[in-house]
Amino acid sequence: MTGDAPPSRLEQQLTFLVELDKAKSIFRQSYVTDGSRKENDAEHMWHLALFVLILAEHAGEPIDVLKVLKLVLVHDIVEIDAGDVFVYDEAARVGKAAKEAAAAERLYGLLPPDQGAEYRALWEEFEAKETAEARFAGAVDRLQPVLLNLTTKGRSWAEHGITGDRVLALNARIGDGSPTLWDHARGLLHEAMRDGYLPSAPSAS
Amino acid sequence: MTGDAPPSRLEQQLTFLVELDKAKSIFRQSYVTDGSRKENDAEHMWHLALFVLILAEHAGEPIDVLKVLKLVLVHDIVEIDAGDVFVYDEAARVGKAAKEAAAAERLYGLLPPDQGAEYRALWEEFEAKETAEARFAGAVDRLQPVLLNLTTKGRSWAEHGITGDRVLALNARIGDGSPTLWDHARGLLHEAMRDGYLPSAPSAS
Repeated sequence: MTGDAPPSRLEQQLTFLVELDKAKSIFRQSYVTDGSRKENDAEHMWHLALFVLILAEHAGEPIDVLKVLKLVLVHDIVEIDAGDVFVYDEAARVGKAAKEAAAAERLYGLLPPDQGAEYRALWEEFEAKETAEARFAGAVDRLQPVLLNLTTKGRSWAEHGITGDRVLALNARIGDGSPTLWDHARGLLHEAMRDGYLPSAPSAS
Repeated sequence: MTGDAPPSRLEQQLTFLVELDKAKSIFRQSYVTDGSRKENDAEHMWHLALFVLILAEHAGEPIDVLKVLKLVLVHDIVEIDAGDVFVYDEAARVGKAAKEAAAAERLYGLLPPDQGAEYRALWEEFEAKETAEARFAGAVDRLQPVLLNLTTKGRSWAEHGITGDRVLALNARIGDGSPTLWDHARGLLHEAMRDGYLPSAPSAS
């Protein structure tokens, strides 16, 4: 191996894998359940993979579990370059698609071409939500932060002034992947509104 | 849903999934690649899942990729109760098996019994290294911290006074899962010893 030789297939793969380490430094808005700090993308993707394994039986349509795992394990990798955008921040979401496409180009371009194409297509499948697997992946991607927020008594919602009406509207898409999970989550959100730590709607003041 | 009713299957599953969040607070000895802090178990398990997906073609035997993913995604969950033990710390490893068995009993006991049994068996399969899937999972579980250490110029090894002879001896087990990956990793370790940031053996002083 000399410095001048083109990288081998294995070297390309390892370069990609080491680059992925940066997802551990991309922070989201949800707090971890002990409230000590916010969650990062690597942790989030691991947690979602467990949601997929444990909750697959509740999918609204037949799903290929391996495919759903691949979708959730890669879905936020583009944020290494593009950053995390809070799901309720509509202004910040403008321009997100172009930034993420450029990130996908660079990051998946580190892989051997066949794998780069395969994994970029998985990210596009997740984003498009046109397959049963992408809909279930999307459902757990919404359910997990709802549960973290409920466990921390709505801390991230409160910080951003997010009210129950918006939480219910945004997370209704859980039902696209799993009516059972959305039915349950909706019940938990109504309990949180009743218990007072998730205001139902903006106050008039 | 009243406070007195036994938890439903879905409630048991969600209790387990929220409990898993604690893996985000169990820290390992490897540094993340920017050197800012040590890596936690949740991040490590996500990173390994990507190693499995991208490197599966290098397995020394035919493997069921979904099974290997399950193994790596759960393999350190017991550390939520049992804590992380540095792989080179032989004294601390005494008693580890009993602590981890108790942790498995509690944590997998949160799940509905069929799933609890399934996931506990996956953890035992990972530990036993008797299947091709467990051997490949074990290989990436060793390869990933080696790469993090090489990327940070041996920082964790230096902190603990770990020398190249021990790194080579311990990580030779990568070859049980993938001779190709071990051949490559061994080459990188020899380069690190030649470049001087991984001392070959304890100094005589």
